[in-house]
Amino acid sequence: MSKDLVILAYSGGLDTSCILKWLIQKNYDVVCYMADIGQDEDFEKARQKAKLIGAKDVIIEDLRNDFVSNYMFPAIQMGLVYESRYYLGTSVARPCISVGIVNAAKKLGAKYISHGATGKGNDQVRFELSVYSLWPEGKVIAPWRQPEFFNRFQGRKDLIEFAKQENIPVSATPKAPWSTDENIMHISYESGVLEDPTAEPPSGIYKMTRDLNQAEDYPSTMDITFEKGLPVSVKIPSGQEKALIINDPLNLVRTLNKLGGQHGVGRIDIVENRFLGLKSRGLYETPAGTILHVAHLDLETYALDKEVLRLKKYLQEKMSDFVYNGFWFAPEARYTRKCLELSQESVSGTVTVQVFKGNVIVLARKSAKSLYNQELVSMDIAGGFSPEDSTGFININAVRLKEYARFAGGQEF
Amino acid sequence: MSKDLVILAYSGGLDTSCILKWLIQKNYDVVCYMADIGQDEDFEKARQKAKLIGAKDVIIEDLRNDFVSNYMFPAIQMGLVYESRYYLGTSVARPCISVGIVNAAKKLGAKYISHGATGKGNDQVRFELSVYSLWPEGKVIAPWRQPEFFNRFQGRKDLIEFAKQENIPVSATPKAPWSTDENIMHISYESGVLEDPTAEPPSGIYKMTRDLNQAEDYPSTMDITFEKGLPVSVKIPSGQEKALIINDPLNLVRTLNKLGGQHGVGRIDIVENRFLGLKSRGLYETPAGTILHVAHLDLETYALDKEVLRLKKYLQEKMSDFVYNGFWFAPEARYTRKCLELSQESVSGTVTVQVFKGNVIVLARKSAKSLYNQELVSMDIAGGFSPEDSTGFININAVRLKEYARFAGGQEF
Amino acid sequence: MSKDLVILAYSGGLDTSCILKWLIQKNYDVVCYMADIGQDEDFEKARQKAKLIGAKDVIIEDLRNDFVSNYMFPAIQMGLVYESRYYLGTSVARPCISVGIVNAAKKLGAKYISHGATGKGNDQVRFELSVYSLWPEGKVIAPWRQPEFFNRFQGRKDLIEFAKQENIPVSATPKAPWSTDENIMHISYESGVLEDPTAEPPSGIYKMTRDLNQAEDYPSTMDITFEKGLPVSVKIPSGQEKALIINDPLNLVRTLNKLGGQHGVGRIDIVENRFLGLKSRGLYETPAGTILHVAHLDLETYALDKEVLRLKKYLQEKMSDFVYNGFWFAPEARYTRKCLELSQESVSGTVTVQVFKGNVIVLARKSAKSLYNQELVSMDIAGGFSPEDSTGFININAVRLKEYARFAGGQEF
Amino acid sequence: MSKDLVILAYSGGLDTSCILKWLIQKNYDVVCYMADIGQDEDFEKARQKAKLIGAKDVIIEDLRNDFVSNYMFPAIQMGLVYESRYYLGTSVARPCISVGIVNAAKKLGAKYISHGATGKGNDQVRFELSVYSLWPEGKVIAPWRQPEFFNRFQGRKDLIEFAKQENIPVSATPKAPWSTDENIMHISYESGVLEDPTAEPPSGIYKMTRDLNQAEDYPSTMDITFEKGLPVSVKIPSGQEKALIINDPLNLVRTLNKLGGQHGVGRIDIVENRFLGLKSRGLYETPAGTILHVAHLDLETYALDKEVLRLKKYLQEKMSDFVYNGFWFAPEARYTRKCLELSQESVSGTVTVQVFKGNVIVLARKSAKSLYNQELVSMDIAGGFSPEDSTGFININAVRLKEYARFAGGQEF
Repeated sequence: MSKDLVILAYSGGLDTSCILKWLIQKNYDVVCYMADIGQDEDFEKARQKAKLIGAKDVIIEDLRNDFVSNYMFPAIQMGLVYESRYYLGTSVARPCISVGIVNAAKKLGAKYISHGATGKGNDQVRFELSVYSLWPEGKVIAPWRQPEFFNRFQGRKDLIEFAKQENIPVSATPKAPWSTDENIMHISYESGVLEDPTAEPPSGIYKMTRDLNQAEDYPSTMDITFEKGLPVSVKIPSGQEKALIINDPLNLVRTLNKLGGQHGVGRIDIVENRFLGLKSRGLYETPAGTILHVAHLDLETYALDKEVLRLKKYLQEKMSDFVYNGFWFAPEARYTRKCLELSQESVSGTVTVQVFKGNVIVLARKSAKSLYNQELVSMDIAGGFSPEDSTGFININAVRLKEYARFAGGQEF
Repeated sequence: MSKDLVILAYSGGLDTSCILKWLIQKNYDVVCYMADIGQDEDFEKARQKAKLIGAKDVIIEDLRNDFVSNYMFPAIQMGLVYESRYYLGTSVARPCISVGIVNAAKKLGAKYISHGATGKGNDQVRFELSVYSLWPEGKVIAPWRQPEFFNRFQGRKDLIEFAKQENIPVSATPKAPWSTDENIMHISYESGVLEDPTAEPPSGIYKMTRDLNQAEDYPSTMDITFEKGLPVSVKIPSGQEKALIINDPLNLVRTLNKLGGQHGVGRIDIVENRFLGLKSRGLYETPAGTILHVAHLDLETYALDKEVLRLKKYLQEKMSDFVYNGFWFAPEARYTRKCLELSQESVSGTVTVQVFKGNVIVLARKSAKSLYNQELVSMDIAGGFSPEDSTGFININAVRLKEYARFAGGQEF
Repeated sequence: MSKDLVILAYSGGLDTSCILKWLIQKNYDVVCYMADIGQDEDFEKARQKAKLIGAKDVIIEDLRNDFVSNYMFPAIQMGLVYESRYYLGTSVARPCISVGIVNAAKKLGAKYISHGATGKGNDQVRFELSVYSLWPEGKVIAPWRQPEFFNRFQGRKDLIEFAKQENIPVSATPKAPWSTDENIMHISYESGVLEDPTAEPPSGIYKMTRDLNQAEDYPSTMDITFEKGLPVSVKIPSGQEKALIINDPLNLVRTLNKLGGQHGVGRIDIVENRFLGLKSRGLYETPAGTILHVAHLDLETYALDKEVLRLKKYLQEKMSDFVYNGFWFAPEARYTRKCLELSQESVSGTVTVQVFKGNVIVLARKSAKSLYNQELVSMDIAGGFSPEDSTGFININAVRLKEYARFAGGQEF
Repeated sequence: MSKDLVILAYSGGLDTSCILKWLIQKNYDVVCYMADIGQDEDFEKARQKAKLIGAKDVIIEDLRNDFVSNYMFPAIQMGLVYESRYYLGTSVARPCISVGIVNAAKKLGAKYISHGATGKGNDQVRFELSVYSLWPEGKVIAPWRQPEFFNRFQGRKDLIEFAKQENIPVSATPKAPWSTDENIMHISYESGVLEDPTAEPPSGIYKMTRDLNQAEDYPSTMDITFEKGLPVSVKIPSGQEKALIINDPLNLVRTLNKLGGQHGVGRIDIVENRFLGLKSRGLYETPAGTILHVAHLDLETYALDKEVLRLKKYLQEKMSDFVYNGFWFAPEARYTRKCLELSQESVSGTVTVQVFKGNVIVLARKSAKSLYNQELVSMDIAGGFSPEDSTGFININAVRLKEYARFAGGQEF
């Protein structure tokens, strides 16, 4: 009788290697799935490791272009920021990987998907809600939430012991005292020594960005062009005739990551509210994402009608929560995304940005679609604007206030 | 027969000096009112100038403590930011000055208040809505909106000619090709050469902050303490036994302005949406305000319940618009302010901040009132948290998504 | 030399007849424009009256189909309700008429549009903001806001005197001591004796609906079918083989108006907040509109995803204010309308409704697109739902609450 | 060794009687807790039944005054309505009962609370989130979510068999083919035959209200007085010298229930979205609650400032969801409630209401605190209002629209 097939989201690390073995021991066929979304990883080594442990097959899929074009850039277009600061680099990667693994599961006729996410975090939620949205009849095995597993493996020590016993190769390098998640958009750092919010992060923790005291001493400038809110090209440096022009999304992000990293751009150190109701402390570095977000915000405010901007911002706040909480494929997120895209019809133009010492400084912006009217706003030109109208405008706005003041009888002042 | 009394918001500059003379020529008694809210101004010289022109009296009132404690600090407590970037340094100054001038008008039995704000800007609105809220029976004379005045004085040249003719002293220094508004919280720059949003601002324009290439080469650290969301003390440098501790609000702001300025902190260059429906380009520098806002946001996210934070953020967005538009004393702003203050009951604690090269970097935060629970979040401690519960949580959240996926029949994927 | 042409929104009543004469006396050519949006009016008589007074021409345009299909039905689809009660029957008529009059003005090469709306009301705003949106270079003459006019005609008596003197026919019937606005969607009643909010409205004031004590003694039932949120057919009575089926929008509204009127459906008596900051008391009767709104709300809640419903409701509240305030053609309203339409993609189905004694009672609803799953919700069927999952769901939701309770130390309870 | 004590929320019905016995068989001491919140129940009979089954004790607590004053009236004050129609009669009862049972548990040193709510409904969530908020160290036993229980008792038949076998008295009356929840505020009906949303409810199902064809033939009028948004007295009939005046909250509700019931007021038949993501169909009758809600809405719109009203409405929508979902004691609900109470400071006054044939008709309203100004709004009085100001107001509002129209180049029209 044939065994049930599990597709395991495999990282090559200790946890998912032990899970792989454990699933095989529980009599499943296991195919390992690895998505390349730009993390620094030796995929071939991981493949061999999985094969050695007993994986029936290993799928390694390059999703970098998909991730940049269909998740990272839309996040910038929609202006997604969680709790005013976090650009959601991990949150937008989860649905991307989920599509890959669900497609593999459907193609191979698997019954289960499995992963190594823990029971207190956001990623289990993001991963599983995406899977269930894409594949409602699919089933998920989350070993870290099964008593049989988490009682047996109560700490890293137990995993290492199991690995040794089962001939699973264990990295000689000691694990960093925190955990990271990496993709082309960002690296996150959390847990371990970082759990104490009163302690400064250890020096040398960041990988994509330089410390400010080691940042470049001369600023870099660039022109970033957006069409309908999506980044379409970068010209470096700004205003030069023989500048470098990059249109390829993946290359664009890589270049801005490198440049932003040299200038120490895009670090945050925050305490955030997880979906499960816990507060947790996290560090993030998002060099290209930060540059693009700053430029997009500037262009958007410049191009959009004042009231449309406010509606858009409300929807953007809702969408940021949806995405953080794992609802990328939920009906409300699909709906909100469509509305946000509609808002960006006229967000086309170019923003000149200077990157320097951790700062992203907007120098200038232009757009054929902006409602900015220099003649109208100019102090020196009447420009179809009668100052007397302002008197009426103010007086009518004051009607309600005067009524209230009379009514309150001055007692509150 | 006695003349009607006008209280004129006087700056000592060309515009309000000409307005002063013009009002006198129109047979009003005029008392000039100057509020000291921290701007760089020779008040005595202005007093003599006003007297020379014919002011019946000149009132100079030091509102700096009032401004910091009752307008700037509440703005930080409430988290006020206009269109994601502007900390409202001018907007919160207007109601403060309005209280001063209305009190003077009531005390002196004046019938009118007059000002030199132009007909396209926000300040006329903020000023007059405040005045009408505080003094509903009061009347405002806004010469720049009266055809008799604006037709006569069509440009600066006309004003200078009038000044010469009427023996009003005219500054020998040529006027900067932009206009500024200054107080202890910030300086704004707009109009003139800045009206072109595609042009980088002229170098040397900023007064409170150094350019990044001239900023200090060593970071400064400090501990900023808040009680119920209001800044109460700053300790510089952080973690030193013999540190400088400042509790006096005015002194606190001055010190952070100086420090922030040395590190090039708090500049923005934006296009914003005015209340009247125009877009305008403005530069702002807000050193102390930026440091305090960054620290407050960090503490607030740390201390507040997740859902309270979201409600607070909605109200904060509304309040930012109310304040920008001049409705500080309107019923909706009074109400929203009370609600926002209620949200800050537990926002007490200390944030350690590093200021360096234009950046305000949060290093650590502590609060006796935070809902952060290190034990609960730790990967290594079960801490009253059953991983199995997460399974149920995810499955129930997926009920709706699976239904939708079945319903949509996969067509959208 | 040719005269400037004015298109006057003409009603045939005393006010606009006097305005017509006054404009002619001020040396304008005047073409009168009357839109038929279902009001009870003798258009031919009005045409002759205008001609007699001196109108260069009179345009009478039947906009009833346009009004029902492009304004009233979208208002139902979008769920527009002002301040929880008013279905915006007047507000949605103004932009419809404005399109007609602007088209006429453009076609005839007019320079001005004129109307008889007063200076305290909403209609002047709705009318003019629509005109300026559709025709930014157009100009508006609003006599009731011009001192020359309103000082001369200080009351109805002055108008009647002017009319007599200028041989303008004056109706023999005394004017009702309130004013009304009528179209196929509703009739509104306000001002005059209605201005006292503590006084019950005079009996016999309502024209479209019977008093409850004269309403039919037997209920009527009907099946109302919607496609993408828009009403497409009504079947009367419900469930009969040989029922009357109406698909034509105008006929549909007429039929529901008659039926609703017989059953006394759709009256409200409210105090509302005008855009100008005044509160005013109004009576409205909206028989067909009320039936359609009740049915639409039921279907929508049935068909839409829970979270999409909440987003839609937020946008609906914003849109209701936009429309009430006259911003139908503003960018924010165009944008919001597109978003609201997007939300209605799956709001298709049939609602069975009983109309009786002023009540609109939903009896049943069905939709091929509803997310309602009887099997899932049934107490008697497990249906892919594990009760144990609810435990996890509750426990995880409680994590935050327990933390708060521990933190608050019980002091608040 | 002493047994662990469980406090069981006991109803006297089949489910909780079987649960009582089951808990005793599982070696717990069980004290039954019954809250009297106005449901039609023979409490003494239930007490004897519980004793007979083996309850260690039975606590019957009269919470009717507490429920009306601290849950039902605040719900009216806050304007709570779920999904535009449901007045939350069950949702507000759960936290009230939870306080009672938690107090009992604490007093008696119990370790557990148990209840008979099922695993698909809202009540389990409301009940348990309240318990955990009030008593974070408490534990809940929910038999209907434990496989041991729900696998054993798969339907009503299994329960009856168990009851017979264990000598638990079983009612001779056959159970209605739906389930109800009853308190002084409302009765709800759901599940069973009601699960089919296309089927009209069985006739005779409603208990508190008459069918419209049996409703009284003469209207009743009353004056309802509110202070700070809370109902404080009812005078019946309105305007009579020798009217009945009721101040006692419980009596007030009872009287309005009776009167509303005679007039067939307060029924709804809806499909709603449960917190767990299911849609379910429910019928509710809320006679007094409906009358009070209609009156309160009228007074509130009359008394509140326009913009405060909008902020209040946003918070009211959020609060309605919090309460429906069981978060009455959560930090966000405590906070929102304080904000909503703040909004009601001036909602004091009297509304005259007619109740007739299912309708609640507002006839008049008065309030010493309303911002309504008859003089200001009157067409016949200039009243400190210059019509010319409206011109400026409209023109300034049009600035943005004209810009947009010019920009869009007419293409969208």
